[in-house]
Amino acid sequence: MFRINENYLQLNQNYLFSTISRKIDTFSSSHPGVDLIRLGIGDVTLPLSPAVIGALHAAVDEMAQKESFHGYGPEQGYGFLREKIAEIDFRQRGVPISADEIFIGDGSKSDSGNIGDILGDDNAVAITNPVYPVYLDSNIMRLGRSSHILLLPCSEDNGFLPELPAERVDVIYLCYPNNPTGTVMTRPELKKWVDWALENESLILFDAAYEAYIQDDNLPKSIYEIENAQHCAIEFRSFSKNAGFTGLRCSYTVVPKSLMVRASNGEMISLHGLWNRRQSTKFNGTAYIVQRAAEAVYSPRGQQEIREMVAYYMQNATIIREGLTSRGWTVFGGENAPYIWLQCPSGLDSWSFFDLLLDRCHIVGTPGVGFGTNGEGYFRLTAFNSRERTVEAIRRIDNFL
Amino acid sequence: MFRINENYLQLNQNYLFSTISRKIDTFSSSHPGVDLIRLGIGDVTLPLSPAVIGALHAAVDEMAQKESFHGYGPEQGYGFLREKIAEIDFRQRGVPISADEIFIGDGSKSDSGNIGDILGDDNAVAITNPVYPVYLDSNIMRLGRSSHILLLPCSEDNGFLPELPAERVDVIYLCYPNNPTGTVMTRPELKKWVDWALENESLILFDAAYEAYIQDDNLPKSIYEIENAQHCAIEFRSFSKNAGFTGLRCSYTVVPKSLMVRASNGEMISLHGLWNRRQSTKFNGTAYIVQRAAEAVYSPRGQQEIREMVAYYMQNATIIREGLTSRGWTVFGGENAPYIWLQCPSGLDSWSFFDLLLDRCHIVGTPGVGFGTNGEGYFRLTAFNSRERTVEAIRRIDNFL
Repeated sequence: MFRINENYLQLNQNYLFSTISRKIDTFSSSHPGVDLIRLGIGDVTLPLSPAVIGALHAAVDEMAQKESFHGYGPEQGYGFLREKIAEIDFRQRGVPISADEIFIGDGSKSDSGNIGDILGDDNAVAITNPVYPVYLDSNIMRLGRSSHILLLPCSEDNGFLPELPAERVDVIYLCYPNNPTGTVMTRPELKKWVDWALENESLILFDAAYEAYIQDDNLPKSIYEIENAQHCAIEFRSFSKNAGFTGLRCSYTVVPKSLMVRASNGEMISLHGLWNRRQSTKFNGTAYIVQRAAEAVYSPRGQQEIREMVAYYMQNATIIREGLTSRGWTVFGGENAPYIWLQCPSGLDSWSFFDLLLDRCHIVGTPGVGFGTNGEGYFRLTAFNSRERTVEAIRRIDNFL
Repeated sequence: MFRINENYLQLNQNYLFSTISRKIDTFSSSHPGVDLIRLGIGDVTLPLSPAVIGALHAAVDEMAQKESFHGYGPEQGYGFLREKIAEIDFRQRGVPISADEIFIGDGSKSDSGNIGDILGDDNAVAITNPVYPVYLDSNIMRLGRSSHILLLPCSEDNGFLPELPAERVDVIYLCYPNNPTGTVMTRPELKKWVDWALENESLILFDAAYEAYIQDDNLPKSIYEIENAQHCAIEFRSFSKNAGFTGLRCSYTVVPKSLMVRASNGEMISLHGLWNRRQSTKFNGTAYIVQRAAEAVYSPRGQQEIREMVAYYMQNATIIREGLTSRGWTVFGGENAPYIWLQCPSGLDSWSFFDLLLDRCHIVGTPGVGFGTNGEGYFRLTAFNSRERTVEAIRRIDNFL
């Protein structure tokens, strides 16, 4: 008889956003015609920018002609895009990442979910608490809910930044600007982690999906801005949040060639080679037209357009942040991140506040506890709705809470 | 110190098509300007059809407007596409598969590579020999090159169809029409496997990526045409080969809700639920514009266009098949599949014939041994080039071999 991967039975029954979605469905069917404002899931609302749309149409036209048709592309992504990324996201910022260290993917959820494929089952893995659920769930799927998964508590006491682990940790997921707390790491704080990883021969999986939201020029956008991080870190980047590609699907993963580890036979192994093999075997590249769209993000016009998009959402973040702060609520994030992390008022727990906000204000947010036990009593709002709806949401909170 | 998944070190050093690609590069640089005909990798050459191109442009326009923009879609795929698939690929053929049993993916390589995520590590897994390398490599990555992976020999003696295993097998990969041999399974032959799987509580992973090439109406296009297969089989389908989506990336996986297995605690578990959880956690859906393109394949015009594409390639297959047969060569496939599998002439081994064909005829094919030891002495040619190049290839073989 065939067997399933029984680690799946150790997962929590429901994925956070599915639960929210069901609650919304229930509420909507008992309140027909209700005007919900969604500040829950981190999905963008602005359309794709003109430079991206132009590139998509042009690439579709190429696919219509035999002479310019593109079939299978390189599993690692096309050179035209990898070169642009290396140049603009890294070399122009003084970070020596080369094009062939960049792997184009179809989304950071896939990339950060699949990265475990190349890692051993005996690693002690650390994640923060609260955390983006994919890190935890993809590890439970692979390793089971064993003692090998360590949760690093993040709370108001430590400014929602984890402390260096006292126990052995081989692999750690760090996401800054952070989802869900909207907090950031300064250069010295990130350096502390890089130094720790080098000293302990640990691997940092650095999720920089929200780097475009950094307003403070002193904050690092890439972990490779920290000296020697290319020896201990893999970085994930996405086009979802900076360029609105949530429905278009494009991301990239940086695996520096200098990231090596000793195998049990003593041989030094390159993680770049392993990820290359994983992608070559279990992925067939991101759509050509989507890679052309991503390339357009790096044109001068594209760069200007995404700066305007980010500025638009950051203005929303300011509206939420200031609106709630002026009510005396305790609020984190929203300054270098599209997420506002608030302490639920009146000592409410996360789901009670979710229900209250839905019932009274017809606003959907995300319960902090959905990101981990340390998120209990907190709540995440996103800056990704329209200006009008964001303003209206704060008005409703002012009127009905 | 962190550890890698050392199963990767047990993989053969080079992925078949990378090796071929390197050989071509070497040949091309020592023979500048040489006019190579590529009948190697199974990539299509005809452009996307007008219905698909129209749908892509329309969907891109939707993405340019706030009102019609699509962000994150359902991880399982959009209802509009799942419904069309269930209706046209299954219900109209008398097979009761419902829309929510269909999971839209970004390619059969991803789907068949990732399916192992939901299976236990203690399964005895069988694949044919020769085989599409992804089945083998993705299992070695997960399980190591252990005795749990059984190779079922396929040769001229058994018409390149595996025999029922004498040993215990929990999971078996079957691909018909077959890559690389181009052979097919009749209804009674496939029924034999379904009955075997039901009796042994084994799981069949059925790759039907080439079903569009079936010309003989008596042959099954889906394993679910066989009674009770919905209790023992997962099916993979692709838009790559029927609609030329190799560069656009869309596929689907059918996981019937009636496919259940007993967990070690005695509980009956639905594989549909497990795959749904895997996709929800580690995948964020296929691009909206690509799903609209796939939907267009199911329009009357789209159906007519893909029939013409397939007919075009099948005419190429006939040209290759008849050209080689008339030389007295022994040839398989090419009648209900886009692959022609030939015995290398003059008793040559696969790579020697590869070199000969490249040197003398400037034709690139795929050495049979690249698909497994039983492929030694055989060679795969594909029907996916243009009519002119296919005719020219046969002319060159006639003139120079």
